[in-house]
Amino acid sequence: MNKETLIQVKTRIQPYIHKTPVLTSQLLNEMSGADLYFKCENFQKMGAFKMRGASNAILSLTNEEKQSGVVTHSSGNFAQAVSLAAQKLGVKAYIVMPENAPQVKKNAVKSYQGEIIECESTPQAREETAKRIKDEKGASFLHPSNQDEVIYGNSTAAMELLEDYPDLDVIVTPIGGGGLIAGTALATQFFSNKCRVVGGEPMEADDAYRSLRSGKIETNTTINTIADGLRTHLGDRNFPIIKKYVDKIIRVEEDEIIEAMQLIWERMKIIIEPSCAVSFAAVLKDKNEFKNQKVGVILSGGNVDVKNLPF
Amino acid sequence: MNKETLIQVKTRIQPYIHKTPVLTSQLLNEMSGADLYFKCENFQKMGAFKMRGASNAILSLTNEEKQSGVVTHSSGNFAQAVSLAAQKLGVKAYIVMPENAPQVKKNAVKSYQGEIIECESTPQAREETAKRIKDEKGASFLHPSNQDEVIYGNSTAAMELLEDYPDLDVIVTPIGGGGLIAGTALATQFFSNKCRVVGGEPMEADDAYRSLRSGKIETNTTINTIADGLRTHLGDRNFPIIKKYVDKIIRVEEDEIIEAMQLIWERMKIIIEPSCAVSFAAVLKDKNEFKNQKVGVILSGGNVDVKNLPF
Repeated sequence: MNKETLIQVKTRIQPYIHKTPVLTSQLLNEMSGADLYFKCENFQKMGAFKMRGASNAILSLTNEEKQSGVVTHSSGNFAQAVSLAAQKLGVKAYIVMPENAPQVKKNAVKSYQGEIIECESTPQAREETAKRIKDEKGASFLHPSNQDEVIYGNSTAAMELLEDYPDLDVIVTPIGGGGLIAGTALATQFFSNKCRVVGGEPMEADDAYRSLRSGKIETNTTINTIADGLRTHLGDRNFPIIKKYVDKIIRVEEDEIIEAMQLIWERMKIIIEPSCAVSFAAVLKDKNEFKNQKVGVILSGGNVDVKNLPF
Repeated sequence: MNKETLIQVKTRIQPYIHKTPVLTSQLLNEMSGADLYFKCENFQKMGAFKMRGASNAILSLTNEEKQSGVVTHSSGNFAQAVSLAAQKLGVKAYIVMPENAPQVKKNAVKSYQGEIIECESTPQAREETAKRIKDEKGASFLHPSNQDEVIYGNSTAAMELLEDYPDLDVIVTPIGGGGLIAGTALATQFFSNKCRVVGGEPMEADDAYRSLRSGKIETNTTINTIADGLRTHLGDRNFPIIKKYVDKIIRVEEDEIIEAMQLIWERMKIIIEPSCAVSFAAVLKDKNEFKNQKVGVILSGGNVDVKNLPF
């Protein structure tokens, strides 16, 4: 892949996504000692950046493949993204979800016409069920974070941000499965000559931090974090990119995530989900890393149950 | 006053306010059957449109007046707006607040260097205390809604909205003290040849609805509404404008306000306060009034205690 690939991806998905706004806050700049540019993927269609990768992955299928539908396992934003992107493209979406997934998440998928296939709540059951659907229906499997076309789609958020603010010194994203930060790293490599990439990760699910140190993919021993989108681990497609291009991973505690989330709610008047707050929490945690710099902060999503908040 | 007055006001306050964005939502359009253009004053400095009127009122003072400071009585957004606008203009702000006002509101005023003078929690005590400060300090009194310069400052939100969307059929605002809707009505008179103005008002504080019917200023018998910014009544400066130019006032129930607020939070991912939700609640309540029209909805503010939500 090269620069042209990403430009083509960006053009291709344009009709299916929002170009999201970039917001700033004088007060949060003062608090952090840096110039912050918040890329609001919480305003993206279905409420998260995942719409970019899902759209691109489905658009990259052949017409024949599209006719057999797509399948993924996710109970989070990727399930909604695949359902909505598939709906827009007239493709059938099969979503494998654990039977104990919250009703609100099932309803979201249904509202976008995704067909839910329930399974036991274990990683094995999810993978087996997805494989069965793949075999039975001939559906193409889409991985939430570890698939090239998903990663390239994700790159477009940072591409837009760099178009608007070409002189950013660094972009910060949360790290869960690694798809967003890998996409962001590719974008900075091709569309900036100086922009670093830094990740924010919950201390309670710090597999990426440890993977960067050990040089191989580590898994989580605990996933006891409110950042429910960041409990997954890296994969063989995104880890090489992360290893090569990501400067640093900053780990944050649970109370720091909640505090960052509340600050953005109260000061910027926008709704972000806990996973999304991790990037801003990282900026506040390690102020020296960002001092007096122009910092892009990707606000990854805003899907949160407003009846069940951590503050 | 004339069109030129408002243009001058807009130019004058520009350095002290944000030109706020206008957001749209396909889903909320579908729900309402209209094309909605949400003017996001919740993103305004200090979090509400009140910054516009407060800035203009202070800017309209003579230098001598500015040296003696300004005084207002408010425990809501106008207190914060006067404090912040005064701070930016190097003017002393005295804020009369009931002694039982929530600490969070006192802290907000203090954070903008407003000096709080506490009084008993009665309208009389508030007015008397403000008058005493006015006499003792020579401070200029600023009224939250019933003062020409405040009304003209408020006009600038609708002026910006009409600049961006000149063909709006109607603009909807909440009605409390009447300052926002009066300012909006002036803007539509001078800057559109067709745009109507409609108000949304809580059933539980429907003084403006009754005033329009009776032709004289009515007061509230109950103010049992979650829309705490809309519990006040109209005044002699804004009522004539409202009487002349406002088409209709739509009253909404408490559960409709809360539902509208939650919809905007969940679907638009932005934070608005209950008073602000009343305009959108009115659009949902009286769909025929707005069917297939281009509707500007002024989202008046976003200052809400996120630890104490109605849903």
